[in-house]
Amino acid sequence: DGGSYDAVHDASSPAAGDCCAQQSSARHDWEMNYQEAAIYLQEGENNDKFFTHPKNAKALAAYLFAHNHLFYLMELSTALLLLLLSLCEAPAVPMLRLGIYVHATLELFALIVVVFELSMKMRWLGFHTFIRHKRTMVKTCVLFVQFIEAIVVLVRQTSHVRITRALRCIFLVDCRYCGAVRRNLRQIFQSLPPFIDILLLLLFFMVIFAILGFYLFSPNHSDPYFSTLENSLVNLFVLLTTSNFPDVMMPSYARNPWSCVFFIVYLSIELYFIMNLLLAVVFDTFNDIEKKKFKSLLLHKRAAIQHAYRLLITKQRPTGVSFKHFEGLLRFYKPRMCARERYLTFKALNQSNTPLVSLKDFYNFYEVVGLKWKAKRNREHWFDDLPRTAFLIFKGINILVKSRVFQYIMYTVVAVNGIWILVETFMLQGGNFFSRNVPWSYIVFLTIYGVELLLKTTGLGPVEYLSSGWNLFDFAVTLFAFLGLLALAFNMEPFYFIVVLRPLQLLRLFKLKKRYRNVLDTMFELFPRMASLGLTLLIFYYCFAIVGMEFFAGVVYPNCCNTSTVADSYRWVNHTVGNRTVVEEGYYYLNNFDNILNSFVTLFELTVVNDWYIIMEGVTSQTTHWSRLYFMIFYIVTMVVMTIIVAFILEAFVFRMNYTRKNQDSEEDNGIMLEKEISKEEVIGIIELYKRSSAATETSQLQKIVLQMDKYGQMSTLFLGRRSRTKSDLSMKMYEEEIQEWYEEHARKEESQTPSQESAPASNNSLKPLSLRQRSQTVI
Amino acid sequence: DGGSYDAVHDASSPAAGDCCAQQSSARHDWEMNYQEAAIYLQEGENNDKFFTHPKNAKALAAYLFAHNHLFYLMELSTALLLLLLSLCEAPAVPMLRLGIYVHATLELFALIVVVFELSMKMRWLGFHTFIRHKRTMVKTCVLFVQFIEAIVVLVRQTSHVRITRALRCIFLVDCRYCGAVRRNLRQIFQSLPPFIDILLLLLFFMVIFAILGFYLFSPNHSDPYFSTLENSLVNLFVLLTTSNFPDVMMPSYARNPWSCVFFIVYLSIELYFIMNLLLAVVFDTFNDIEKKKFKSLLLHKRAAIQHAYRLLITKQRPTGVSFKHFEGLLRFYKPRMCARERYLTFKALNQSNTPLVSLKDFYNFYEVVGLKWKAKRNREHWFDDLPRTAFLIFKGINILVKSRVFQYIMYTVVAVNGIWILVETFMLQGGNFFSRNVPWSYIVFLTIYGVELLLKTTGLGPVEYLSSGWNLFDFAVTLFAFLGLLALAFNMEPFYFIVVLRPLQLLRLFKLKKRYRNVLDTMFELFPRMASLGLTLLIFYYCFAIVGMEFFAGVVYPNCCNTSTVADSYRWVNHTVGNRTVVEEGYYYLNNFDNILNSFVTLFELTVVNDWYIIMEGVTSQTTHWSRLYFMIFYIVTMVVMTIIVAFILEAFVFRMNYTRKNQDSEEDNGIMLEKEISKEEVIGIIELYKRSSAATETSQLQKIVLQMDKYGQMSTLFLGRRSRTKSDLSMKMYEEEIQEWYEEHARKEESQTPSQESAPASNNSLKPLSLRQRSQTVI
Repeated sequence: DGGSYDAVHDASSPAAGDCCAQQSSARHDWEMNYQEAAIYLQEGENNDKFFTHPKNAKALAAYLFAHNHLFYLMELSTALLLLLLSLCEAPAVPMLRLGIYVHATLELFALIVVVFELSMKMRWLGFHTFIRHKRTMVKTCVLFVQFIEAIVVLVRQTSHVRITRALRCIFLVDCRYCGAVRRNLRQIFQSLPPFIDILLLLLFFMVIFAILGFYLFSPNHSDPYFSTLENSLVNLFVLLTTSNFPDVMMPSYARNPWSCVFFIVYLSIELYFIMNLLLAVVFDTFNDIEKKKFKSLLLHKRAAIQHAYRLLITKQRPTGVSFKHFEGLLRFYKPRMCARERYLTFKALNQSNTPLVSLKDFYNFYEVVGLKWKAKRNREHWFDDLPRTAFLIFKGINILVKSRVFQYIMYTVVAVNGIWILVETFMLQGGNFFSRNVPWSYIVFLTIYGVELLLKTTGLGPVEYLSSGWNLFDFAVTLFAFLGLLALAFNMEPFYFIVVLRPLQLLRLFKLKKRYRNVLDTMFELFPRMASLGLTLLIFYYCFAIVGMEFFAGVVYPNCCNTSTVADSYRWVNHTVGNRTVVEEGYYYLNNFDNILNSFVTLFELTVVNDWYIIMEGVTSQTTHWSRLYFMIFYIVTMVVMTIIVAFILEAFVFRMNYTRKNQDSEEDNGIMLEKEISKEEVIGIIELYKRSSAATETSQLQKIVLQMDKYGQMSTLFLGRRSRTKSDLSMKMYEEEIQEWYEEHARKEESQTPSQESAPASNNSLKPLSLRQRSQTVI
Repeated sequence: DGGSYDAVHDASSPAAGDCCAQQSSARHDWEMNYQEAAIYLQEGENNDKFFTHPKNAKALAAYLFAHNHLFYLMELSTALLLLLLSLCEAPAVPMLRLGIYVHATLELFALIVVVFELSMKMRWLGFHTFIRHKRTMVKTCVLFVQFIEAIVVLVRQTSHVRITRALRCIFLVDCRYCGAVRRNLRQIFQSLPPFIDILLLLLFFMVIFAILGFYLFSPNHSDPYFSTLENSLVNLFVLLTTSNFPDVMMPSYARNPWSCVFFIVYLSIELYFIMNLLLAVVFDTFNDIEKKKFKSLLLHKRAAIQHAYRLLITKQRPTGVSFKHFEGLLRFYKPRMCARERYLTFKALNQSNTPLVSLKDFYNFYEVVGLKWKAKRNREHWFDDLPRTAFLIFKGINILVKSRVFQYIMYTVVAVNGIWILVETFMLQGGNFFSRNVPWSYIVFLTIYGVELLLKTTGLGPVEYLSSGWNLFDFAVTLFAFLGLLALAFNMEPFYFIVVLRPLQLLRLFKLKKRYRNVLDTMFELFPRMASLGLTLLIFYYCFAIVGMEFFAGVVYPNCCNTSTVADSYRWVNHTVGNRTVVEEGYYYLNNFDNILNSFVTLFELTVVNDWYIIMEGVTSQTTHWSRLYFMIFYIVTMVVMTIIVAFILEAFVFRMNYTRKNQDSEEDNGIMLEKEISKEEVIGIIELYKRSSAATETSQLQKIVLQMDKYGQMSTLFLGRRSRTKSDLSMKMYEEEIQEWYEEHARKEESQTPSQESAPASNNSLKPLSLRQRSQTVI
């Protein structure tokens, strides 16, 4: 079997193997090389450093164990479990309160799972690398502290002040799936130094103005805001967020109208100048870091590809990778890929039309491997095979739904519907809207939408119809509207929110204008990144929520804070005026830290910064005035994150707009596309190849292609590879000119470093990396 | 006289003149050409279009009359007078109230001056051009309306509703000195289309959420915010500015905690996404417009230089401009320039060292003509000529003040002083701070600063000392502190604000860090532009203030608005609790439109947008609910202007930071510098030239240079030209690569257009423009 296994490269052994390897072990060698190459490529993709590369077979086993979605899911769910525990621990959300035994046991269980995960990681990394890996070490320390605390809680049977719970989010951040969050956090920390510089400028002016304000306004005894230097400072800090403006100005303004100059100058300098400067500095640093990050990721991927390439070439043919070896790699790298897709990926990589893929072509690996391949139909429409009459009918519908007139009629209908809803809502003035009959307008519009849906589905075919994001959106909204109709017809109150979603139909109008299409497309492209930024913000929220709960749980309640200036906002009084009961509610006691959900809402209110000082003053009046530090630090932290979010949106959109401006004349872009033609002989050749190896089960799809070709009498089939555009593709375009420079610079650096490097190739093959196979052979 | 007037180019007549011109009129011809060339260059500098170029001698006289600083000042003061009238017209600032006769007469007087200005302009432009000039036509219409209204006021002897007063700012905008404001306004209007697109998106989501909010929350009768669709819309508009958050959420949040999701989603979409998108779009459009504007200005200047050049070359020597003609040009273009500077400018332009300046060199005219020339001293210090002992002492002081140790000691002193002030202020708790003795710390620190000042002035020499902006700042602050000491010592209460400015000393600490120096330098570079943006904002303020006064003057007063939800903020009650009088003040009645100063303060509060809805609701409850439109439109207008200001700051700083990053290794930049050496013969040659013409009085400075050279036995003197860097210089660097392309593209376009142009040269000289001289000769 070992002899007949490879007709073409029969005697070939991996270039990276040692030359006196046994013929019979060649196949095993190759399997090891495939696996290691796949690992390199994975490391390149995930931006894992190569020093964490598994060093022997035991490590490899641990690596494989720790690098699959099951393990990742376990990681994620443990982390989420730990985070969610704060819902049940005192101070718990009332509905979800659990006994101390229950939640402490759950916590211990989760922590033990984390210990298991860490031990697997140690097994994979080895003790020395494990110690050197900073993030893992921090995680270990936090784990240790959490363990002790959980045991203490179990033993004392009562929860103590556990601010360390705020560190639980480290478990989430360390998850494989949260790589984007880690990157964001790194980027935030890297943006900090210039940010802090400008922040100091901001605080400096604040101090100067606080001293000035104290001197100017403290003689006025009706002005509570500047009575002491501390008050003066705190109020100017709040004024920076404009939160107490114009109230803070009013007492002094009432006494002397010219005192408004002080506030106008302060706000002009701080709010309109330095705050914008802060944005500019963050924007600039962010762009710089983004570029550096992209560069290092690009070079890392390139290095990974080089490593993988060295493992795949043979000594006999050192100039490229054959399909057999490429296929072996893909079996490990993307086990789900079918044989047809593997061959198409190989063809797409191979631009020279030789049987081997050179290193230069191999560099495009990551761009090509993500493509989804589909046979390009000769048939234009789904109904081409139908009888003549049916064909003509469907063809007519097809032309109709593709016509501009049809589109504009639908836009008009949507617009009329929008105005209708608006007028209808305007006519309703309060009351229960759902006890009435179903309005006829609802039915009419829904019918029109239904007909449109039907026409489009039949005219374009369901597959083509649903392949457009906008049609998908139309479909979903119409479906919701239909469900809403059912809810209305059957008086199902719990579903009334669906009825309320009707105005979303109007969103379709935004297809009309190019700018909106651009904006929405960009939004979708950026969505993953935005989501990760949002998650990063949530992680900060979690930390602050825990700290807030530990310190401020239960401190505000109705009619508390009577000693403070914001007492009115916390008032809750039942007057009886005449024969009516008048309730005077300030409601602010609802903005508390009594459980984690309330804390999140309170923190969101603090993020919005309007009237946040009422919350701060309320809490401060019930605790010490050091509590203000908590609120001020929270403000600064959210300011950092928010500024970075703004910088990100700004950068992405400005780039996208420039990009579309440049490529104005090119057609609508539908992501990355690539066409490849495969001839019948090629397919048969591959089937042969697979049959000779034991993987004959994978060829069923290939055989189907051959059958298809026979049926239509074609000699070849055209395949279309497609994937959506990512931020990385945009960046590639953005830095197009610089990328070549980076490569050259990198190549020079590599060359100069190679002789002094530890991991320099040991054999005569200069391309050969430190191979797992060699080491593993000594162990097995 | 005509014959001996020009030894070198005796027989030469201007290339742009007709060939059969009389010898005797050659000189007059040249004077006309000089003047016209100077006018072209002025037009290039001011971005005046060439179609407004004076077409004959009468027009020229009017042009000259209308283009000098006296006329500009008249324009400006008339415009300011008209604007300031709103201080005295009803509703007037109480102190400045004038009788109707007085202010109406003043207004009529100012308007007559404007009529005079316009008639001068018409004389210069000619009727046809005048009609075509849009801005002037608008001004004429506004003038007409204002005239009628002023007369009506005089006749009726009472002021009527005069919203047209808001248009008075057009007179200011049209002033020559307000060119930057005009450019800003143009830029704002050009940025509007994309801005409005995104604004519609914003409003669209607002409407959708308003309908949703109405359906969701109107069944809750304790929620006043969503009771009708209109309320719902208004409150979501206010929520967009976060102004009523979290209050608007509270009633529904109290009933159902999950209703917070509605508000969080709304704010996330509107405030954190679309608003940032708005910034991105404006930033992008702004950059694009800025670039286009810079390009057109650059090409306009180039065209102006070409026009001027054609008027200065002779037929005998068509390859360049001689010094004699260049000097003639400068006599008209910069009459204040002395002969030495004229020659240096010529030398600086002339890079080929031939006696003629070619067109290519002449293109640098605007960059070179602004340089201030100074003889570069051989003496390094001001005290080099002093006797040995004095020299050594001053040299020692010089070394001392230039040493890092001295600098850091001073920084430490400033820091200690800062902490001292902080602690001292912290110890004071209210009371009158100025009745006490002068604190000794004040004297100590002031003495140290005085000594520093003295050392620096003596060590560096007063001229060098004051040439640095930072030293100037130190000097000013120390002077203020000294004045403050005097004020303290002599108990002069009105000057106590000087004492309060002491903390400004701390600003010196910001010299320490490179980033701060960059920020402050950039700030100074951008100051003119920022000021013009601020002025633009003030012009919008003025319009809104007038409209506000006409509609809302006197509508809010203490204890008004009792029917609205914001009644508390307008309350003013004197309780008597026990034996004390408690004043309950809401103060918001102070935010009114009762006179123009109050209106400005109110509008600033509306700009800051915190709690602006209290002002809006107060006014609305006293008038109709259409008043809200005023406030909403004001918000949108300020949002546009503010977004553009942010975009401007962002762009300028990001560019500056990139620029400094690129030129990190170059020395500290001190603006644009150029060195030129002049030999003794050259100077004598120029003196001869001037003597032969009748301008012998201008050579006194040149003779001084010759004397100086004789004294030191030098054969030549080195001169240093210097000017500060402007935004235009930065832009030049920024678009360096593209500028050449623009030039080429422009040259191609010119070539292709020339044959079809009306104003194509009529004579055999292809460079010859439509010359004023020719036409004027027929008139004279």
